[in-house]
Amino acid sequence: MNVDVILESERVRREIRAGRLTGTSRGLAPSFVQCNLAILPRDHAFDFMLYCQRNQRACPVLEVCDPGDPVPHRLAPMADLRTDCARYSVFVDGVRQGDRTDIKDLWRDDLVAFLIGSGITFDDALDRAGVQTDRHRWVLRTDRPTERAGPFGGNLVVTMRWLTPEQAIIATQVTARFPFNHGAPIHIGDPAGIGVDLGHPMFGGPVSPMPEGLAAVFWACGVTPQSAAEAAKLPLFITHAAAHSFITDLPAHKLMLP
Amino acid sequence: MNVDVILESERVRREIRAGRLTGTSRGLAPSFVQCNLAILPRDHAFDFMLYCQRNQRACPVLEVCDPGDPVPHRLAPMADLRTDCARYSVFVDGVRQGDRTDIKDLWRDDLVAFLIGSGITFDDALDRAGVQTDRHRWVLRTDRPTERAGPFGGNLVVTMRWLTPEQAIIATQVTARFPFNHGAPIHIGDPAGIGVDLGHPMFGGPVSPMPEGLAAVFWACGVTPQSAAEAAKLPLFITHAAAHSFITDLPAHKLMLP
Repeated sequence: MNVDVILESERVRREIRAGRLTGTSRGLAPSFVQCNLAILPRDHAFDFMLYCQRNQRACPVLEVCDPGDPVPHRLAPMADLRTDCARYSVFVDGVRQGDRTDIKDLWRDDLVAFLIGSGITFDDALDRAGVQTDRHRWVLRTDRPTERAGPFGGNLVVTMRWLTPEQAIIATQVTARFPFNHGAPIHIGDPAGIGVDLGHPMFGGPVSPMPEGLAAVFWACGVTPQSAAEAAKLPLFITHAAAHSFITDLPAHKLMLP
Repeated sequence: MNVDVILESERVRREIRAGRLTGTSRGLAPSFVQCNLAILPRDHAFDFMLYCQRNQRACPVLEVCDPGDPVPHRLAPMADLRTDCARYSVFVDGVRQGDRTDIKDLWRDDLVAFLIGSGITFDDALDRAGVQTDRHRWVLRTDRPTERAGPFGGNLVVTMRWLTPEQAIIATQVTARFPFNHGAPIHIGDPAGIGVDLGHPMFGGPVSPMPEGLAAVFWACGVTPQSAAEAAKLPLFITHAAAHSFITDLPAHKLMLP
């Protein structure tokens, strides 16, 4: 790769690596696929991959690195997964430790990194289609069980957006073209229909009263596998911190259906 | 499931299980997804799944059973993978043994069964679109390396069809709607462009001279992961015999894009 024509994704990752960009990845390098990161020991990697395969809507695996290899050779060959997210969350025996800005000192030869497609990827396409993505958005737990694999299980986590009926129709069409980033909504309408309790959002702050004329639209969310891995109480589990996703070199349109 | 409304897929599997159907699965239960079967020890299951993930065009994983479980609970909950293919091929240390009509006596608690989408699935859609699928079809090895994972590697295997230009265009559109069964062609035209040697087909018999006005069209083929598993010389590897695929209860249209 010629440094004169460096990709925007790599430029942003360098800023993150150098500590000059520390906030959310939302809106950064908007035409590139963003991924949720899950890093866990080799001993649990098969079961975790099985879990993702059985729950693909929530857990679309885009790349799995070889054990011990922190470089995602297919999606970002110049990147380093130990330094290129702005913030990491670390869990030991299922207990959350302090967040970190890199995980160099935690890296081990038996760690396996999974890159899982993030819904942030279609924010740009939604914005361009006239569906605002910067507000009325929360991450919530449903009462729908996922399919288990080994120690991994738990309920489906969803992203909820409040949209006008017209936006809901447009957003359904746009996101259906991203089957490797959660795809079309899984539910529209009453949150209780999928057991969502608006009183307890996981991310996004308290749920405000719904403005008249809007409808709730729900997508399977990449927090699902993180939640499953936390609950499995692995000896070590590392993930990007919420909204601090890993930015790949893959143009989003290459994962889109025509 | 009420026995009065038994699915055609289950009816066919019962005939196979009873030994009354012993031939190819082509054309049987045509509206249901058919799968290539790969069974291998748990010790190699993660690497094999990684191999499939890295080569999804050839190896679209539709279900992975728990270790020791011969029932594909998602795709055919009444089936038994030890008896429901008409013919199995068995490899010990990479050496092919005699084919079998069941593998009950070979089953072990550590065996993991992978169901991988087969191109047979879109034969019915091609036939209905006016693209004949019962002739001018071969399985061939290319010189394109697949992406390695652990002991699994080797070159991409393709299915070649000879079609009229009009059929090639129709077939491209039809098969693009089956991204979980190899999807659109990977190449059209000169076999040498992907290093295919017409003198050595893997299946389909000798390649006949191409009738004037036809063009070669190539799809990634589910023989690829079988070929990789054979070459890895696993202590035990079991697959369906060529063209004797496993028939699932999943209607093909449910895996199709709109």
